[in-house]
Amino acid sequence: MMRQALSTLRISTRGRGFQEITRDVQRCVAEAAVQTGLCTLHLQHTSASLLIQENADPDVRRDFERFFARLVPDGDPLFIHTAEGEDDMPAHVRTALTTVNLSVPVAEGRLCLGTWQGIYVWEHRRAPHTRSVVVHVIGDDG
Amino acid sequence: MMRQALSTLRISTRGRGFQEITRDVQRCVAEAAVQTGLCTLHLQHTSASLLIQENADPDVRRDFERFFARLVPDGDPLFIHTAEGEDDMPAHVRTALTTVNLSVPVAEGRLCLGTWQGIYVWEHRRAPHTRSVVVHVIGDDG
Amino acid sequence: MMRQALSTLRISTRGRGFQEITRDVQRCVAEAAVQTGLCTLHLQHTSASLLIQENADPDVRRDFERFFARLVPDGDPLFIHTAEGEDDMPAHVRTALTTVNLSVPVAEGRLCLGTWQGIYVWEHRRAPHTRSVVVHVIGDDG
Repeated sequence: MMRQALSTLRISTRGRGFQEITRDVQRCVAEAAVQTGLCTLHLQHTSASLLIQENADPDVRRDFERFFARLVPDGDPLFIHTAEGEDDMPAHVRTALTTVNLSVPVAEGRLCLGTWQGIYVWEHRRAPHTRSVVVHVIGDDG
Repeated sequence: MMRQALSTLRISTRGRGFQEITRDVQRCVAEAAVQTGLCTLHLQHTSASLLIQENADPDVRRDFERFFARLVPDGDPLFIHTAEGEDDMPAHVRTALTTVNLSVPVAEGRLCLGTWQGIYVWEHRRAPHTRSVVVHVIGDDG
Repeated sequence: MMRQALSTLRISTRGRGFQEITRDVQRCVAEAAVQTGLCTLHLQHTSASLLIQENADPDVRRDFERFFARLVPDGDPLFIHTAEGEDDMPAHVRTALTTVNLSVPVAEGRLCLGTWQGIYVWEHRRAPHTRSVVVHVIGDDG
């Protein structure tokens, strides 16, 4: 029978960087008791992203930070919106260049992620924040 | 009971810039009479984007335009595809760097957006266009 | 009646470049026998993307390659993660700047794509790969 479930994850970030949430999302899918279906994540913020990326070598995440620090540098004089500091507008741009929504199918009660895919909250502000991710699961329990 | 609804928003843009559509999308959700579910937007174009971003300070949108104008400049001699002018290929690239699909869960009949999140059509062409956004809502009416 | 279907497309890429999969996805929708609904694609990799873009002029795809080759150059000394060669980390960054998930509504048994929209697997590695795209379709058969 078709069913759905909605829950919210609260993720404490430690400032700029990646926080893996794959297990937390998988737990939401298990609690929804959906065997075949679709899991959608929505991050309710404009200065942090959701990203599916390599979960093996931590150098990948370090290189991501280095690349984005060069592409969208903090304190860039181009930006007018600096109300919350020199990392404020760069955090918005990094978010727009990535995304705040993800949708992953579910099969046999598990997220259909690839072997090397992990789901991350990518904090773009320098200070720690609490970030909310709404998790929606829809599908069949059979 | 599980139900769904499909509708299309026609958005008149005024050339390059942001057009907020949060209320239009919320209206589609209300008309679908879904209390708990998922709302998916698809923009049917390749030179404009859908973006969820800060809805408070208009300087944020101005800074977005300035950043993207520098990152993907009009008239860049790199580009061969200039059939519709010097903003043609940059508009495609801006679209690819952002997105044309969004999925936002629905709770208590409302989009689960964060406090500062608005949904925008971001026109990347200099001339005004009419843009179509297909809105799909699925969920429970109970 | 509400129904869903899950399938996997295996796409053989020829190294860096675009492979159109619009017809393959449309075939999954037809096989799912869904008239009105939602089709979600998830690419199970971290060095290739899904992209909806212009399907008419092949120069558009060539210009995309040229732009991304300049934005995220192979062999950039910034990168530490070079385990699989100088195109390894650039492939991850290109993937993050685009996306691995897409959701497109379905009406009258067909994907609600715009006239000029095609769905592509964009291979970011130089060598050919086999890429898996999970296709989830949910909706009504009536």
